[in-house]
Amino acid sequence: MIAGAALLGVGAGLDRLLADTASDDAEKDAEGNVVSFYGSHQAGIATPQPDYLEFATFDITSDSGDDLRALLQEWTLAAAALAEGMRVQSRSDEPDGAGADPGETIGVGPNRLTVTVGFGPSIFGSVRKGRFGLDVSLRPSSLLPLPAFEGENLEPARSGGDLCVQACADDPLVAFHAIHVLTRIANGVATLRWSQQGFGRTSATSRDQPTVRNLMGFKDGTNNLRVDEEREMDEYIWVQPGDGPKWMAGGTYLVARRIQMLLDVWDTTTIDGQERAVGREKVSGAPLGQENEHDAVDLGARKHGELSIPADAHIRLASPKLNGGQRILRRGFSYNEPSLAGSGQLDAGLFFICFQRDPQRQFVPIQRHLAANDALGHHLLHTGSGVFACPPGAQPGGFIGEGLFA
Amino acid sequence: MIAGAALLGVGAGLDRLLADTASDDAEKDAEGNVVSFYGSHQAGIATPQPDYLEFATFDITSDSGDDLRALLQEWTLAAAALAEGMRVQSRSDEPDGAGADPGETIGVGPNRLTVTVGFGPSIFGSVRKGRFGLDVSLRPSSLLPLPAFEGENLEPARSGGDLCVQACADDPLVAFHAIHVLTRIANGVATLRWSQQGFGRTSATSRDQPTVRNLMGFKDGTNNLRVDEEREMDEYIWVQPGDGPKWMAGGTYLVARRIQMLLDVWDTTTIDGQERAVGREKVSGAPLGQENEHDAVDLGARKHGELSIPADAHIRLASPKLNGGQRILRRGFSYNEPSLAGSGQLDAGLFFICFQRDPQRQFVPIQRHLAANDALGHHLLHTGSGVFACPPGAQPGGFIGEGLFA
Repeated sequence: MIAGAALLGVGAGLDRLLADTASDDAEKDAEGNVVSFYGSHQAGIATPQPDYLEFATFDITSDSGDDLRALLQEWTLAAAALAEGMRVQSRSDEPDGAGADPGETIGVGPNRLTVTVGFGPSIFGSVRKGRFGLDVSLRPSSLLPLPAFEGENLEPARSGGDLCVQACADDPLVAFHAIHVLTRIANGVATLRWSQQGFGRTSATSRDQPTVRNLMGFKDGTNNLRVDEEREMDEYIWVQPGDGPKWMAGGTYLVARRIQMLLDVWDTTTIDGQERAVGREKVSGAPLGQENEHDAVDLGARKHGELSIPADAHIRLASPKLNGGQRILRRGFSYNEPSLAGSGQLDAGLFFICFQRDPQRQFVPIQRHLAANDALGHHLLHTGSGVFACPPGAQPGGFIGEGLFA
Repeated sequence: MIAGAALLGVGAGLDRLLADTASDDAEKDAEGNVVSFYGSHQAGIATPQPDYLEFATFDITSDSGDDLRALLQEWTLAAAALAEGMRVQSRSDEPDGAGADPGETIGVGPNRLTVTVGFGPSIFGSVRKGRFGLDVSLRPSSLLPLPAFEGENLEPARSGGDLCVQACADDPLVAFHAIHVLTRIANGVATLRWSQQGFGRTSATSRDQPTVRNLMGFKDGTNNLRVDEEREMDEYIWVQPGDGPKWMAGGTYLVARRIQMLLDVWDTTTIDGQERAVGREKVSGAPLGQENEHDAVDLGARKHGELSIPADAHIRLASPKLNGGQRILRRGFSYNEPSLAGSGQLDAGLFFICFQRDPQRQFVPIQRHLAANDALGHHLLHTGSGVFACPPGAQPGGFIGEGLFA
């Protein structure tokens, strides 16, 4: 069992750290960079997006429902403490041991850290009492492995997982530290499967955030759903009572896709060609045929008889009008990783994360549509993938996923 | 040939970008986040260290000295433009082409970008007129491939290279963009060999920078040389006239080492054991036996007859006293990369960069000493390596490495 260090007495190795750093942290907390972990929804979804991501998935190595429940309780307490900028201690910490918290963020402050937990389809068996003794009736019909999409090249080593954790913060060290601590806590029950870093949010998620450019040089996410659009959040993002098993009401589904940008070819494409693939002007971000970034997309606009936004342009194929009115909340990041000798090109792209009420009605048909037709798709390669059910938030004393064990 | 966009007339694809973004950039420049590329020394060495790194090495695919010279001229002009927050254009840009600059930093500002260029030992042949027609007398005796060190596990795909470029900035997008542009410019003459990202500077390089913790949770670089210590910079960092071939006077040698931290074992080591391996207290950073981080290291201090700083502690073995008085300028960064399924642990550590007047008298003997004895070394694995001669800075009209062609 884990608790925020401030909640425990002395004894574990890291209590010494607290005395030295409490004043530093208190100062930094006062700057308003704490996002509370607790709430009706999990943090990190309807939270304005910070600049850095550390995403990880885990394979559960135990068969015991009690172990899974204890892990979720411990992660909840640890994540709540981290969000407040506190060090984490484990009740199993040895008095002279290093403790659960390796200490690399001492004095750094919480930097709007959010931790979001999700469950992969693999936590459910197909029989009545499957893995962890979870009844098959608890499995949402929305939580299915993603189908294969045309042109993807998924690496198993970057895909799937029984659990996911999305850590976001304004400092990459803080996001790293959260996954570092949760990986240590999971020891003996779950092991890290794969992880992915991201930077430079590639979506605007609130009205006061300017749109950021992705590594193709285009403004990305202009028409993203905004987290302060409450009606739309209820309609498109939050699972509603009656949508499926009760434990997911107030939750949402996370889809993650690691999308490599084939920059060597893209960079030699003409700007006109790039703009026609995207459907927007490169500099201004305006939809083709319009003047300004936030002008409404007019799919019917024509110039000299030709569609201003070509038939295979990304923003046409991704638009709600061509996807049964469906919308999703994108919350992606750029990535940029070591290139190794022999590849001859940068390994960079987009770690796409989106949230939705039902991936079977939202991400899956939209992506099927894009994969078959999108002109931009010739410059992209999907190399990693995962889908996860993120249950509602917890209240103090509760834990993420508790409805599974009710 | 490349020039800062402002230096060229219209015609190339990206000139449209400038008109739209000039005012944004001007505002950001006014915030004092420009580090001039030109000067007697290259920028990025005696420059207070920003938070993000993109490091890359290149293999030259041409045999022509004229090609190498032209590449260095073009890189110089491009780097100078990028440091000012300008877009880069190439004279070979097609009027309707995408141009040399893919545009992802439009509106972002220079963020204290520095670009530092170095030459690997492999640019010189062993015969009188070797690669590129460079006379063997130009080869500094200090520029030799590093010897093998005990316990290292170097990956060829993360080691070596004919040229290196270190891009540092306060925004990872800006550092990425610099390497992105220089890779595009090199097309046809040199190809990207390997790249490495870093964050969270792990050294203090000026007196007003607080010491930062590395991913082992320890303050790192407390006793680093500071870039404002001019006498020490001349004695230990800058190549002096008479040190070797004239073209390197005012330059320095860069050593890069990718050092993975074996965190799973480290994290379960007691704090006492960690402190004895490092030689400092974890929380305060004080040398063992002292009170405060910046107290002088007393290698003779004893408690109950035992050395306070153990015989195999990192700071003892790395101390100038045990290394013939030698010092180096460390300018390293943490790294954190995707973990792939099967590894079961985080892939994180330190991308160590140091500068020195002569690696044969500085890095090589110090590292040999550490590799054989350092208690901390059991928790580290060197997986990538390179050594590069960084010539002096250029003046406007000149270019980095021009002394090679004098």
